[in-house]
Amino acid sequence: MNDTFLKVCYGEKTDYTPVWLMRQAGRYMPQYQAIRSNIDFLTLCKNPKFAAEVTLQPVDILGVDAAILFSDILIVVEPMGMRLEFSEKEGPVLSEPVRNKSAVDKLIVPEIEQDLPFVLETIKILRKELENKVPLIGFSGSPFTLATYMIEGGTSKNFVNTKKMMFQNSSAFLYLMDKLTDTVIAYLQAQIKTGAQAVQIFDTWAGILTPQDFRIYVLPYVKKIIKELKKTDAPVIYFVNECAGILGEIKKCGADIIGIDWRIDLSDAIKKLGKKIIIQGNLDPCALFLPKEKLEDRVKDILWKGESARGHIFNLGHGILPQTPVENVIALVEAVHTFSR
Amino acid sequence: MNDTFLKVCYGEKTDYTPVWLMRQAGRYMPQYQAIRSNIDFLTLCKNPKFAAEVTLQPVDILGVDAAILFSDILIVVEPMGMRLEFSEKEGPVLSEPVRNKSAVDKLIVPEIEQDLPFVLETIKILRKELENKVPLIGFSGSPFTLATYMIEGGTSKNFVNTKKMMFQNSSAFLYLMDKLTDTVIAYLQAQIKTGAQAVQIFDTWAGILTPQDFRIYVLPYVKKIIKELKKTDAPVIYFVNECAGILGEIKKCGADIIGIDWRIDLSDAIKKLGKKIIIQGNLDPCALFLPKEKLEDRVKDILWKGESARGHIFNLGHGILPQTPVENVIALVEAVHTFSR
Repeated sequence: MNDTFLKVCYGEKTDYTPVWLMRQAGRYMPQYQAIRSNIDFLTLCKNPKFAAEVTLQPVDILGVDAAILFSDILIVVEPMGMRLEFSEKEGPVLSEPVRNKSAVDKLIVPEIEQDLPFVLETIKILRKELENKVPLIGFSGSPFTLATYMIEGGTSKNFVNTKKMMFQNSSAFLYLMDKLTDTVIAYLQAQIKTGAQAVQIFDTWAGILTPQDFRIYVLPYVKKIIKELKKTDAPVIYFVNECAGILGEIKKCGADIIGIDWRIDLSDAIKKLGKKIIIQGNLDPCALFLPKEKLEDRVKDILWKGESARGHIFNLGHGILPQTPVENVIALVEAVHTFSR
Repeated sequence: MNDTFLKVCYGEKTDYTPVWLMRQAGRYMPQYQAIRSNIDFLTLCKNPKFAAEVTLQPVDILGVDAAILFSDILIVVEPMGMRLEFSEKEGPVLSEPVRNKSAVDKLIVPEIEQDLPFVLETIKILRKELENKVPLIGFSGSPFTLATYMIEGGTSKNFVNTKKMMFQNSSAFLYLMDKLTDTVIAYLQAQIKTGAQAVQIFDTWAGILTPQDFRIYVLPYVKKIIKELKKTDAPVIYFVNECAGILGEIKKCGADIIGIDWRIDLSDAIKKLGKKIIIQGNLDPCALFLPKEKLEDRVKDILWKGESARGHIFNLGHGILPQTPVENVIALVEAVHTFSR
């Protein structure tokens, strides 16, 4: 069993820097495409056999130090009472956006075992398959990021509806955040209980907020989740995309590990977060289009900067892009392992 | 003549904090909509009479302390040799994206007087109309931001084509940056010569880069432009959207004034930029959806933080959104003037 990833999560020394990659299972990989050619995205997420198979692909092909459950952050909104579809062009589409108190009233905090059995089934299969390999990471979207999708009805450019609800109907917005927080706690607890050995909270959109709004509308809810999860043994990673301006707030969240996007120098991020934090990141996903030698230079630079943190898990600053050449991803994982020894 | 804005640009003391707003002329304003109902966007940009009229609307209606030329950053790419269209849905569409050396070869550095006479004509009309009112700001997109549109063929989510060209064909990318830099210098020099009393360089997309890539691929070109413009009297504002992670690089650009988006606390930004810089910003455009009292609280907070800089020009952290209520924008300008006295 390769437990390098977990060791770093627990603050222990390791022989080399572990690496996993956000969206390491996905469209850039022909083996994933092969499975997706017969099955649509949502069905894949809900089919434990195929979801597990897709989760395992990068472990074998890339040699990463952790697997992450294949799923989508929006899977959890269906049992809350929303209709979810994925369109190839627009991405996720949620019917009947939630924009007032009565819409929040109708939302249900799901019973995970009953409402999302396929997620837990996937975790069970994976723990067996990964027994002598690497640890399994579970995950959830953050309440705020989930709220943006529910309020906007999908992705957004300026998140006007989200901020309008925040600013003009704060009580309904915070009521939604409460329901989502309870949901995320139950969801991650169930994943951990079933076998996830660490979890990541994805906050893809919290970076659109001012530091002040992050402090009021996001931080208390993330803190609450992390506090609950601390009752388990599983380390918690909190990843905020576009985090540079709000790291001073993020550091208060209570997570053992903070994920960093690529728009900030890793040394700067470590300085802001302080010596207690284990850091994860932060190669630009587009650096995977660099010639090998230049890619290696960037890996060395990030590894070198990561040394000043309490611990460092190598990752990208966001998910792998569909156009990425697989051979470059393999070269990246190899480079991290070689140069960190 | 209200010269408060220019005084702050020159580092002088003023009785109150001047304010202008990015996209202060635009779709949120019924008077603008009235003109646009008879004329498409590109034609409006190219018609000096109407462009001047639209420029003047916010000066009269909002009481801002500066006018900014109504135009679009992409106006300059047409005489460079590209076809430009605006679609209501997708925004700007550029035919035949520039992705290799031979495509860059074909691009022309325009003769501004000859190729963009309508821009200079608009400036002439405006200087007359503004004679006893407020100063006129000219502007251009930065070479990098213009390059992204030329390479992607429009807006983009991940800017993969831009970064691919940067990383895989650096010489062609830098060749494009050279041509764009010469174009921007000529364009802003012509605007200043014709009557623009200050200029802003808009770098809408430089915030998608790592600090390292910003230093290599953006900063030298912006520095060159600013150095050339320093030969004139006109103050230069450099605005980078999503600037939080790269302020340490931005401060080296040589501009008198740095524009800041809303994703960073203004005090943090001022600390990073140092005491020589005059700061512009940084209210979240969505704060214009707040109830008046809470909007005023945010204005006071930003004004208070702005006092620690060498000078402060109040602005939004990005452009006014089309859905914004005009009365809130009027209230914002009034609040800045009242609370800064």
